[in-house]
Amino acid sequence: MNDDRPRLGGLLTREPHVIATGVEVLADALREQAVPVEQVDWRPPPPGTDASLAAVLRDPRHAEANARAVGRLLAARPHLVDVRPAREVLGLEPGTFLHAGPPIEWERTSGPMRGALIGAMLLEGLAETPDDAERALARGAVTLEPCHHHRTVGPMAGLVSPSMWMFVVKDAEHGGTAYCSLNEGLGKVLRYGAYGPEVVERLRWMGEVLGPVLREAVRLHGPLDLTALMAQALQMGDELHNRNRAATALLMRELAPAFASTDASRADIAGVLTFVGGNEHFFLNVGMAAAKCAADAARDVPGSSLVVAMARNGTDFGIQVSGTGDRWFTGPAGVPDGLYLGSYGPADANPDIGDSAITETVGVGGFALAAAPAIVRFVGGEVPEALAATRRMYEITMAEHPALQIPMLSFRGTPAGIDVTKVVRTGVLPVIDTGIAGREAGTGQVGAGLVEPPGEIFTEALHALAATA
Amino acid sequence: MNDDRPRLGGLLTREPHVIATGVEVLADALREQAVPVEQVDWRPPPPGTDASLAAVLRDPRHAEANARAVGRLLAARPHLVDVRPAREVLGLEPGTFLHAGPPIEWERTSGPMRGALIGAMLLEGLAETPDDAERALARGAVTLEPCHHHRTVGPMAGLVSPSMWMFVVKDAEHGGTAYCSLNEGLGKVLRYGAYGPEVVERLRWMGEVLGPVLREAVRLHGPLDLTALMAQALQMGDELHNRNRAATALLMRELAPAFASTDASRADIAGVLTFVGGNEHFFLNVGMAAAKCAADAARDVPGSSLVVAMARNGTDFGIQVSGTGDRWFTGPAGVPDGLYLGSYGPADANPDIGDSAITETVGVGGFALAAAPAIVRFVGGEVPEALAATRRMYEITMAEHPALQIPMLSFRGTPAGIDVTKVVRTGVLPVIDTGIAGREAGTGQVGAGLVEPPGEIFTEALHALAATA
Repeated sequence: MNDDRPRLGGLLTREPHVIATGVEVLADALREQAVPVEQVDWRPPPPGTDASLAAVLRDPRHAEANARAVGRLLAARPHLVDVRPAREVLGLEPGTFLHAGPPIEWERTSGPMRGALIGAMLLEGLAETPDDAERALARGAVTLEPCHHHRTVGPMAGLVSPSMWMFVVKDAEHGGTAYCSLNEGLGKVLRYGAYGPEVVERLRWMGEVLGPVLREAVRLHGPLDLTALMAQALQMGDELHNRNRAATALLMRELAPAFASTDASRADIAGVLTFVGGNEHFFLNVGMAAAKCAADAARDVPGSSLVVAMARNGTDFGIQVSGTGDRWFTGPAGVPDGLYLGSYGPADANPDIGDSAITETVGVGGFALAAAPAIVRFVGGEVPEALAATRRMYEITMAEHPALQIPMLSFRGTPAGIDVTKVVRTGVLPVIDTGIAGREAGTGQVGAGLVEPPGEIFTEALHALAATA
Repeated sequence: MNDDRPRLGGLLTREPHVIATGVEVLADALREQAVPVEQVDWRPPPPGTDASLAAVLRDPRHAEANARAVGRLLAARPHLVDVRPAREVLGLEPGTFLHAGPPIEWERTSGPMRGALIGAMLLEGLAETPDDAERALARGAVTLEPCHHHRTVGPMAGLVSPSMWMFVVKDAEHGGTAYCSLNEGLGKVLRYGAYGPEVVERLRWMGEVLGPVLREAVRLHGPLDLTALMAQALQMGDELHNRNRAATALLMRELAPAFASTDASRADIAGVLTFVGGNEHFFLNVGMAAAKCAADAARDVPGSSLVVAMARNGTDFGIQVSGTGDRWFTGPAGVPDGLYLGSYGPADANPDIGDSAITETVGVGGFALAAAPAIVRFVGGEVPEALAATRRMYEITMAEHPALQIPMLSFRGTPAGIDVTKVVRTGVLPVIDTGIAGREAGTGQVGAGLVEPPGEIFTEALHALAATA
């Protein structure tokens, strides 16, 4: 080997390989000349953020606050412990509904949120017809509150009304509890804004049969360790937001003997097993409650820039940050980019909706896309993009989850705990792997895809955090 | 770009990157000089094979015969249709036992095969004590026949005695049927050569409770499409030989409502669900019967060099080839290279044993390692090695399975259908991902790892095939 060779010897004799950042003009021009270019998703911090970034990073509490907050998020040990009606477990009064995302009034709600509210009115007997329901909602007959204000999360519209049954998940490490409704399956379902008779009928069956049988089975089984189950599912091709096939099968495997031992009739047990086994997203709501448990454990650490909630109501995208308490930072929800069912297309899509981004908040879902190469066929894209998406998330997170690992990245832990300062500094936004609701009330699901939060809400959170420093 | 540049312009100015084949001396010397080397696992055909290779490849029937044979293997559509006792479904007479691998006599059997034979004697009431059983076996009191001679396969020792229950798998495309025993779980089990009271007691329960409940559930469910289930499992991190976690969970999910609807007592149903759910290898035997179905569909095509069976009896490794009928080509079974349980080590390992290499014969198991990155922790090795192993198998196979795909290889079909001529020409041997039995009768499983067949049996098969040309 010739060690006297100048260090830059290869620069002019070898093929150039360019790494480009920022605007794509340079990269595009090079690509046209057949020069290999790798575009890195990095942007300089937005103007006007320097002072706030400096204030937050210089805050003497900051490093320790983040270590404490993300440490609690990672140490949480959510267990499924019970299944109970919302009126009992949340003390939900008749005429109060919970919904996904940050607070919103009827006037600003989108189609699928309106559809779900109408369906809940019919289910609860507060209206006879959809028109009656809509009029009652418009005159404020019902109190609307975010799920997140009640230690609760709900996918898509996230509607919770008093008669609905909830998964009860308890954090064995810190003692917190979180709740999520039961998953209804796919297609025309309340959470996607459908409210036809079959939707309401299914919800009645869920309240009369599914909920009670699940309750008995979960109680017979005893606390079920969800971290262990989710860790297995990540090794079985789930990312635990848009793909829950393995987790659902593992949950069934775990509870099957208990189901068989309940006092329910054989027909009801078989009906419940058919319903759960026929819905590959059944675990989503369990996993969301587990994620909520972990994220809530990390709340309210003064000085911490950890994101503890990302949630959308179909109109606004909101985040909450550990160091700024219950304050929401909101901006307009974007429309996911993905694949559409049947003849639906982008024009049918509602903006991003649901509390399910709680999965990304704790480092699974879009953050664990690399664990789920098969998901790319469901949301559009190629396998290498799934790997790249997860790798990019390490740039904006504080830690790698010690229990949740990704085989294809040689068992590296999932990127966990979004740091507001890293998002602002890099311009890299969290990737969310989500379902797409039809924008018209009553439509149901129209597709699935990837979406990002509006970048400005992280800047806003940064300024608020700086004000506390 | 300078198009006048000589074609070899970069050869002396760029870093050399060497691809080496054959003996490793060159590669090792280069590596010591820090030159990047890629060793390709290729060896020249063994001396004395030229004439036979030429005869087989020149055989005018050859191309079409292979297309037909592998086409039948790929087109097979195995369905689980029933579960029945071996005495009924195989017409197995008292005093006749089936075993894994090519034919063998008691004198040449290894420890785990002896242990399993002793256990079967006790189970069938043909002996009172292990010593009695051993004496009876030594004097030839029992007829031993290979499973493969009865459209049957069995993992490890592969013992089938008349009272054992069998999965019945039917090929909806070609009409063939294949059988496999029920999986007993891990650790001290008959198939690994253990025969203590707990082993025999478990087998009794399997005959009295598990078999009948499974039969009723499978019949209530109706034919269960195993290709669809296996395709899903490959997308969920199984390779379907040493890892069947997803397939087992999917099988349970599929049959759960039927289990709940059987006439069995709730305690028996719960017992069966606990047993199946607690054994992540339960699906292995179902998958083996499915593989046997597919491989049998490809038998007896004159001129075809497709391998239709790879099987080991703990002493010999045998293969059968489509163009040479029922003839076995056998050589000494090797010892797998892998990881050991507890304090066991290589000195405790028996040579390779079992019919489970029927999975590799149809292109899953070791051939689908790339689908199961998590398996590397079970058999030793790193994730890139799993990808490399599967990529290597494309060099010796005829086709890519249209239904069984590997997400991490961008949904490329599994390498399916081993071609004897390709094995001889490349020197690349099939990789088998397998359990390791203790060499002492009565021990049970001691580990898991990778193993290859002896290369000479492919050469022998090639010569036999040439003789038919």
